[in-house]
Order: sequence, then C-alpha cells, then structure tokens
Amino acid sequence: MASPSILPYAPVAAPRERPALDGAALGALFTDARTHAAWLPRPVEPALLQRAYELARMGPTGGNASPLRIAFVVSPEAKARLLPGVMEGNLEKVRTAPVTAVLAWDRTFWEKLPQLFPARPEMRDRLAGLPPPVQERLGHQSAYLGAGYFILAARALGLDCGPLGGFDPATVDAAFFPDGAWGSLLLCNIGYGDPAQLHPRLPRLAFSEACRIE
Amino acid sequence: MASPSILPYAPVAAPRERPALDGAALGALFTDARTHAAWLPRPVEPALLQRAYELARMGPTGGNASPLRIAFVVSPEAKARLLPGVMEGNLEKVRTAPVTAVLAWDRTFWEKLPQLFPARPEMRDRLAGLPPPVQERLGHQSAYLGAGYFILAARALGLDCGPLGGFDPATVDAAFFPDGAWGSLLLCNIGYGDPAQLHPRLPRLAFSEACRIE
Repeated sequence: MASPSILPYAPVAAPRERPALDGAALGALFTDARTHAAWLPRPVEPALLQRAYELARMGPTGGNASPLRIAFVVSPEAKARLLPGVMEGNLEKVRTAPVTAVLAWDRTFWEKLPQLFPARPEMRDRLAGLPPPVQERLGHQSAYLGAGYFILAARALGLDCGPLGGFDPATVDAAFFPDGAWGSLLLCNIGYGDPAQLHPRLPRLAFSEACRIE
Repeated sequence: MASPSILPYAPVAAPRERPALDGAALGALFTDARTHAAWLPRPVEPALLQRAYELARMGPTGGNASPLRIAFVVSPEAKARLLPGVMEGNLEKVRTAPVTAVLAWDRTFWEKLPQLFPARPEMRDRLAGLPPPVQERLGHQSAYLGAGYFILAARALGLDCGPLGGFDPATVDAAFFPDGAWGSLLLCNIGYGDPAQLHPRLPRLAFSEACRIE
C-alpha cells in the first residue's frame, strides 16, 4: 500500500514548492481587509510599528535605495501639530486614530547607497548627479512601493490601516520635517478599526478591464 | 485548575482579535522572499496571474481610483517586442523570465470613477479638470502603491518576482500601448526563481535610521 508509484507519468516533484498563503492570510492582507476611518479605543504597541517597518523594508526598491521614511504620530502634542495640515473631511479620522504614520521620502536618499548597496559605490555619485526632477521621480516611485509594502505589513501584524492623501504636504513638512530632509507623501492612520462603522465595500475593476495577457 | 481568573487586572478581551500572520507567511511575503534574476524552467499558470491581480486590486488607492494596469508579457512574440526597451544589464533576466509584467497606469484613470466610486459621481469631473501634472502625480502614486500590493500578492501565491526599473518607458509604451491609453511605470519578472543563483541579501536601514515615533 505504501509502495512508491511506478507510473511513468507520475508528476515530477517541482524543484521548489512554496505553497500559497491560506485563505485566512489572504483575507487579512487583501480580501477581508478594509480601509478604516473609525477606530476602537485601543492603543497600538510601539513594538508593532517597528515590526511593521522591519517587514516592509525587506520589499524590493530600485537599486535597494529604500527611500521610504516614516514619522509615526502618536502623542497628543504631535497629533496637534499634524491636524492643521489635514483636510477637513479627514480631520476626525486622523484625530481619533491611535497612530497616524506620515509616510515620506528622503530627499537625499542616495546618501545611504554606500551602506545599502556596498558592491556598487558608484551609484551614490550617479544618483547625486541626476537632475532634481529625476531624483524626485525615482525617490517617489520606490517610496510609494514601500508604502504599499508597509500597509500590507501592518495588516499582516493584525493592525488596520486608513491611508489618505487629503492633506497639505507643505504644512505637514513644516511641522515635522522643518530641516527639509524628508518630504511627506501619504498619511496612514493605524489602529484597530471599528467594523461596525464600515461602509459597504467599493467595487474594483475586473481582470479584463485592467489587465492583458500578451 | 480550569477556574476562570478572578484577578482584577486580568486582561480584558480585546473587542476584535485578528492574529498576526505566522512566520511562514511573513517569510513568504517579506523576510525570506528575494528579488530573483534567474528563473527555473517552469511556466506560470495564467490563472495565477489573474488571481494575483484580483488580490492586489483590493488594496487601498486614492479615492478607490485603482489606476494600475498590467500587460503580462508571456508569448515569445510579445517578449521579442519588449526586449528592445529593456536596458542591457536586464536583458537576460527579462528574456528568461516566464512572464514579465509591464506595470502601468491608466492615463485617464478618472473615467472609471463613476464605476469605482458610484456614490460620488462628481469625482470624475473634478479629476478630469485638474492640470495634467497633478493628474499624473495622483495616477502614479496610486499605481505604485498598487504595484507594491501586486508584488506581495504574487509572492502570497507562491510566485517569485524580480521588479526592475531599468527600461525605456517610451519604447515599451510604443510597443505595447500605442494608443497612449496606458503608460508603463515598472517591469516585474514573474516565475519561480532559482535559489541557487541568488546573491547574498543586501542590507536594509534600521528602524532608528528610517523612522521616528513622535
């Protein structure tokens, strides 16, 4: 009964098998997770914020340049500094969130390249010499990729997120990055969302509307 | 022995508990996953590409505008059209990958807003009336967020990714999006990576270098 198969067409063992995540994990990351705007009165452990960053930083970025920076706004004093930069429709969401992450990019991210890609020390100089709009484009693109990783990393740790673009970057930068070193890109409320206050989920595009296989 | 705790400071049950993903899942998404450049000779099921998109599309985007579009380059004919736009150092990676996804944005993504956010039909007109650089900034930011979700969704399904920015968008757009409707942002090789051909992992920034808690 336990003899090995001798069928000539028995499937060959795949060279490397990594199973898909199970439905609960896919649900927590994608299909059940929701953007939250109302928060349960439950604080977020600072260690979880660090853990979320330490997961998100492992995702790929252009040349490993890792330009995403994060200011986690937690204290009432810091929240008070953030609110004047938030658009009116988002004020209550931000005010009540246990944490609001200011997702930002490092305006001179190439200075870290000797540390992040030691085998190619010439990359720092190459990036430093690019025109500022190209530097900004490269920094933004990898920082937004990193923001995507961060949102899913937070969800993977059991947290809920409420990212929002409705804020004034200049006001937020003046309040949190007065030396100009970092530039804010996105806010992301973090906490434990109140499922009772969710609206019905908005639709998404079908595969055939957004993708092609060529 | 099984009597309930009567300690006055026993922890109150949290109102909603969703456990963190286990170590294997976090490894598959973040800590064990690697950017691959060499591929095992094993094809990718088209159904997996669709499934990866259908997970990634659930992630949050600005106003649910969902501007990410994807052309999956699979056939030898399509791969031959892609290669002239790829930088020399990336040619072999792209040539040998079972699939190369051209991650793009929809240059008139606001036209889908009546479908994607039916409760706010005015959003289409508001976005349509913005200056083109602002439209592009909004489209890029949510498309890159979506690209981050897509890379992790593919990993969640057991696939490996090799995203790369070293290509000429104008050449790729002319080959794949000649009507100008979509604009390429990033290439992402997809398949089953050969672990024997990985280099040692590059470092990342410490929490204290990239983050602050305020």
